[in-house]
Amino acid sequence: MTQSRNLITDVAGLRIGNAQDAGLGSGVTVALFDEPAVTSVFAMGGAPATRETDLLDPDKMVPAIHGVVLSGGSAFGLDASSGVQACLREQGIGFAVRDALVPLVSQASIFDLVNGGDKDWGRYPPYRELGYEAARQAGPDFALGTAGGGYGATTANLKGGLGSASALTSSGHTVGALVVVNSIASAVIGDGPHFWAGALEEGREFGGHGHPARVGPDHRRLVWKGGPQPATTIALVATDAVLTKAQAKRLAVASHAGLARGLRFSHALFDGDTIFAAATGRRPLGDEAAEFTELTALAADCLSRAIARGVYEATALPYPGAQPAWRDRFALA
Amino acid sequence: MTQSRNLITDVAGLRIGNAQDAGLGSGVTVALFDEPAVTSVFAMGGAPATRETDLLDPDKMVPAIHGVVLSGGSAFGLDASSGVQACLREQGIGFAVRDALVPLVSQASIFDLVNGGDKDWGRYPPYRELGYEAARQAGPDFALGTAGGGYGATTANLKGGLGSASALTSSGHTVGALVVVNSIASAVIGDGPHFWAGALEEGREFGGHGHPARVGPDHRRLVWKGGPQPATTIALVATDAVLTKAQAKRLAVASHAGLARGLRFSHALFDGDTIFAAATGRRPLGDEAAEFTELTALAADCLSRAIARGVYEATALPYPGAQPAWRDRFALA
Repeated sequence: MTQSRNLITDVAGLRIGNAQDAGLGSGVTVALFDEPAVTSVFAMGGAPATRETDLLDPDKMVPAIHGVVLSGGSAFGLDASSGVQACLREQGIGFAVRDALVPLVSQASIFDLVNGGDKDWGRYPPYRELGYEAARQAGPDFALGTAGGGYGATTANLKGGLGSASALTSSGHTVGALVVVNSIASAVIGDGPHFWAGALEEGREFGGHGHPARVGPDHRRLVWKGGPQPATTIALVATDAVLTKAQAKRLAVASHAGLARGLRFSHALFDGDTIFAAATGRRPLGDEAAEFTELTALAADCLSRAIARGVYEATALPYPGAQPAWRDRFALA
Repeated sequence: MTQSRNLITDVAGLRIGNAQDAGLGSGVTVALFDEPAVTSVFAMGGAPATRETDLLDPDKMVPAIHGVVLSGGSAFGLDASSGVQACLREQGIGFAVRDALVPLVSQASIFDLVNGGDKDWGRYPPYRELGYEAARQAGPDFALGTAGGGYGATTANLKGGLGSASALTSSGHTVGALVVVNSIASAVIGDGPHFWAGALEEGREFGGHGHPARVGPDHRRLVWKGGPQPATTIALVATDAVLTKAQAKRLAVASHAGLARGLRFSHALFDGDTIFAAATGRRPLGDEAAEFTELTALAADCLSRAIARGVYEATALPYPGAQPAWRDRFALA
């Protein structure tokens, strides 16, 4: 069962902001927590670009953080967190150490440096300002597709983008996923229009095409960026449940199954596939093991669905010869 | 493209042996390498039972090992490696330290202690002898389904089992998967007969049922063992490529995507989901990054297919009230 927005913001206690630059062909998405959220991370790709991930290990001191950033810009994009920190500092938000306030923001970036946008930024990459702007924009509603950290995202055959989805567990906990789909491979079976996540679609959230009854060898031909060039699918899953940091890590680990089911293929040497998991802590778990297990299963489902939605909602970049979007190829006229 | 046997033994340089005990309702599968194979592992479940996995990290000294065991018996089953070592020692196989020979055997076990078999073994669990016998049986052909380490395996709704599949990469490397499917959840969509791995099926290797064109909310109801009780899907992927130990680890990591796509759901708190990856080193990689990336993608596919085959080939345990097998429910009369 999905929630009202079918977005990660159905989880109480977090807001999402996007900022993007059409000329740059890239952008930033930020998740800000109303109260510090217990957060962990699991990086499984062979080529991750991340910042402030070590402190998310359960053995590290920090109990909770203030935000998570999913950005473009590869290693340059990691400036975005600095802009988010600046915005939070202006609002008096941070981890207090005597009279110092340190906003704690963790981040992963995708590789979108060869998508046709102008990357000739000289000494100061624009991601710091994009991060600041994304944080300023944060609210309950946000655009999917070619937006925020998904603005410059691509897959091997169709424009990638920003996706999200939510679900309600039988214990009344909300779980949601937010993803930047920049896969080394593909979210659709063969040339499309069916999504690998087709069997998990709720309603017509990614077009209602379902699944082909037969998938022939042509559909199973491997579709990928080749080269290979770096690629990455990065995500945040969140819940209103009360979790320990170790449980948040398990949630991040288990959610990689959702990443895997949304794409063929994933977790490759040139992938940076990284998932953050955050708990806003509004509702304790009752029968802990059972409720937590259902929560991790539905988080993985949400991530698969969010991947399909990110591609389904995307529009082509405004450059000559830009990669076609799913809508360009398959939407009804 | 599958290879001749559509088994992991299509990979040159390894043999598989099974041993099982019907009264016990459990068994052991062993992979033995003709020459020591570069092997690593990645454990992602929340409740793994493993032995000799630390030495498989790329920073550890051991360059290659002699075998991998996938067994029943949970933590008791880890005795199986001792029996395999005994068999290898008799054959003069081991890591030589002056005149000592140490057979190096890594293992993971599934939880199959409540499947109706007689687990009242007293002081000496039977897995050591089963391991010895499985090693003695090792050859190019072996049974799937209710056999070896998959003998006592179950899923939430259908009998689990031992599965395998193989593929040939465009660079001529063979890759194969071997899996004991003992999922906390399910390999089939809803009540079946369609497999979650349906879109990846080669030929009619698991019945040729394909995929339902529409999957309704009833199909998406979460099916799992509840309780929860421990469960585990454990696997070995292997290739004839020459890999470094770090590449073998990446192969194990990437193969978890195949585990994820074969089941809904996986990688849960009570799962032990663990994958070994071994390289028998018969064929160097050419264009290393590209060939290796394809190899990891096809290994994940093989594992998804092997999961479906393990359930498809299974027969029910010989006990009153035993869990039904896929064949009991869906095979044509």
